Amino acid sequence: MTQERRGSTSPVRVAIVGFGVIGKRVAEAVQLQPDMELVGVADIFADWRLAEVARRDIPFFAATAEAVPAIEEAGGAVQGTLDDLLPQVDVVVDCTPKGVGAKNATRYRQVGVKFLVQGGEKHEVAGHSFVAEVNYRDAVGRDATRVVSCNTTSIVRTLHSLKTAELLARARGTLLRRATDPWESHLGGIMNTLVPEPEIPSHQAPDACTVIPDLDVVTMAVKVPETLAHVHFWVAELTREADRAEVLAAFRRSSRTVAVRADQGLGAVNAVKELMLDLGRPHGDLYEVALWEDLVAVQGREVYYAYMVDNQAIVIPENLDAIRALSGVTADPDESIRMTNESLGVGRIR
Amino acid sequence: MTQERRGSTSPVRVAIVGFGVIGKRVAEAVQLQPDMELVGVADIFADWRLAEVARRDIPFFAATAEAVPAIEEAGGAVQGTLDDLLPQVDVVVDCTPKGVGAKNATRYRQVGVKFLVQGGEKHEVAGHSFVAEVNYRDAVGRDATRVVSCNTTSIVRTLHSLKTAELLARARGTLLRRATDPWESHLGGIMNTLVPEPEIPSHQAPDACTVIPDLDVVTMAVKVPETLAHVHFWVAELTREADRAEVLAAFRRSSRTVAVRADQGLGAVNAVKELMLDLGRPHGDLYEVALWEDLVAVQGREVYYAYMVDNQAIVIPENLDAIRALSGVTADPDESIRMTNESLGVGRIR
Repeated sequence: MTQERRGSTSPVRVAIVGFGVIGKRVAEAVQLQPDMELVGVADIFADWRLAEVARRDIPFFAATAEAVPAIEEAGGAVQGTLDDLLPQVDVVVDCTPKGVGAKNATRYRQVGVKFLVQGGEKHEVAGHSFVAEVNYRDAVGRDATRVVSCNTTSIVRTLHSLKTAELLARARGTLLRRATDPWESHLGGIMNTLVPEPEIPSHQAPDACTVIPDLDVVTMAVKVPETLAHVHFWVAELTREADRAEVLAAFRRSSRTVAVRADQGLGAVNAVKELMLDLGRPHGDLYEVALWEDLVAVQGREVYYAYMVDNQAIVIPENLDAIRALSGVTADPDESIRMTNESLGVGRIR
Repeated sequence: MTQERRGSTSPVRVAIVGFGVIGKRVAEAVQLQPDMELVGVADIFADWRLAEVARRDIPFFAATAEAVPAIEEAGGAVQGTLDDLLPQVDVVVDCTPKGVGAKNATRYRQVGVKFLVQGGEKHEVAGHSFVAEVNYRDAVGRDATRVVSCNTTSIVRTLHSLKTAELLARARGTLLRRATDPWESHLGGIMNTLVPEPEIPSHQAPDACTVIPDLDVVTMAVKVPETLAHVHFWVAELTREADRAEVLAAFRRSSRTVAVRADQGLGAVNAVKELMLDLGRPHGDLYEVALWEDLVAVQGREVYYAYMVDNQAIVIPENLDAIRALSGVTADPDESIRMTNESLGVGRIR
C-alpha cells in the first residue's frame, strides 16, 4: 500500500533509481527544491561516478545485492540496497535504461511506493503519461506516471500551446535525433552518415497522443551525427489564418518554450548550448524548447517552424513536477511549475 | 552568333569550364557518350589535378591567361586559353563555383556559343532551368539552360512523378543537407552541430518551380555534419486517396528514381554509397534519387516518404541531356535519357 504523505509541511521524500544522464540531473534538481528531500539514489556502478555521488552528499544504495561487493571494493559507501531505500520514500523516480523501469515498476507496486518512469518505458507501465503544463492535475495522487521522452515533451509543449490558442488543426514534423549522448559518444565512433528511423511514421507522434489524445500529428525521424541536441522541423496547419505575431504569442503560452534568434548568432545548436554554459546552468542544460523565432514563417493557414531540444535536460523540470503531482504536495500545476522554473532558471535566458 | 550543328552524324563538341566536383564527373560522362566529343576542359589550378586531367587524355586550357605560367611550372600541358577553346565547341558546360558561371555567361553569349550553367546560378543567368524528364523539349535549340541543383533535381523528379500520375496536391519537405563535399572536408573541421538554413521556407521549393511552375511546394533545410549525401523527408498531400502500391508505381515513372530498402541493410546513406562502390560506379556515384521504398507510408490522402540525394552525382545525367537538348542532336527526350542512362548504368542497382 502506498504510504500517504504526512502533511503539507514535511518535504516529499524522493529516491532516484538509476544515476545516469537523467538520474543525476534529477538528483541535482531535487536537491534544489525546498519541498523535497533526496533520501538516496540507487545504482549498480562501481567507478568514477561513486565519487560524484559522494561529492554531492547523496546517500548511495546498491540497486542489487550482487552489486554491493564491487561498489565497496571501489570505495563506495553503500547505505544498503534498494529494499532498504524504498520504504523510506514517498516517490521513486526511476531513471534506469529503457525496459528496466518496466521491471522495476512491478517491484515499486509490491512495496506500495509511488513511482514515475521515464519516456523510454511504454505508457502502460505507469498507465499515465505526463507533461506538466497539460495534465498535472490528472496525475495528482496517482500511484504512478511516466514523464514522456525528450522529443515527445517538446512536441506536447509546442502543440499544446497552439491548441490552447485554438490555432492547431494538424501538425507534421521531421525530427533530427542526435546520434548519442555526449558522455558515451566514445563508444559509437565517428558516424559519417544519416540513418532514418526504420519506420515512417515514427513513434513520437502517437506518444504525444498519450498526453493529448486528440492531436492530429505525424512524425518522421532520422539519426544525425552530432551529440548536442535534437532539432525538429514542423509544418502545422492552423484552424484559421493567423499572423506571425499571433503564432509567436501562442508559443509563448508555455513558460518552457523560449525564443532564440538565428540572426543574432544563435542559428545552430552549438551556439545555443554555448549560451546555456555562459548562463552558468549545470551541464549547460537547456530545459526549454528553444524556438528559432526569426525562422517562424506563416503562409496562408500554415505555419513553418524549427526548434531545438536538449534531450538530457528538457525532461528535468517535468520530473520535478511529476514528483509533486504524485505526492500530492500541491494540486496546483501553476504552483509546482513556478517553483520548478524558479529553482532551475527556466525561461531566464537573458 | 551560335555556330549551328553540322549534321546529326558528327558528335556534339563539348567544352567544360571548371574541373571540380561536377566538372570532372561531367567530363568523364561526356567521354562515354558516342554522340559527344570532349574538346577540352578549362580551369586555373596548378596542382595534383593536372595529372588527373592528363591521365584522362583531356586537352587542358587555362581559364585565364594569368594562370598559364603557374600551370606550366606545375608540369601541365596547356593547349591554350579559354579564348582558344570556346570557338572550337558547340556547347560549353560551365561547372565553376557559384557566381562565376553568371560572369562567364556574358562571355559565352559574346562568343556566340551555347552554354549550360549549374544550379548554383540564378535562373535568370540562362533564362531556362532544366530537368530532363520534365522539360527537355523546351531546351531544344536554346542558347542556354541551367541544370538545377542537386536538391532541386531530386524534388522535381519525385514531385513530377506524383504530378504526372495526377496524385499531387501539395508537398512539404524537410531537407538535411550534408555539411560539405568529401574532397574538401579537411577544410571544415569536425562539426558537432545542426545548422538550420537562415530562412524558412528555404529556397529549394521556389527553385523547383522554375522547372514546374505550378507546384504547391514548401521546403525547410538544415545543414548536418556528414559528407555523404542529402536526405529529404516529405509529406505530400494527394489529390485523392491512393494505396501504397499506386504511390510507389508513380515514383517508378522516373527512370532516375530507384527504390532501396532499409529493411535489407540499406537503411542509411553510407550503406547505399557502399552499394554504389560495390557496383563499380565511378566515385561510387548515385545518379538516382534513392527512395526508401519500405518507409513510404500512406495515411488517408497523405503520403510520407524519405529519399537520399548524392549531391555530387545526381545532376550528371541531367548535364548530358542538357548538352543534347541545347545542341539539338536529338529533339526526343526519351532517346537522350535512354542513351544517358545506358552509358552511366542509371537505374541498374542490382
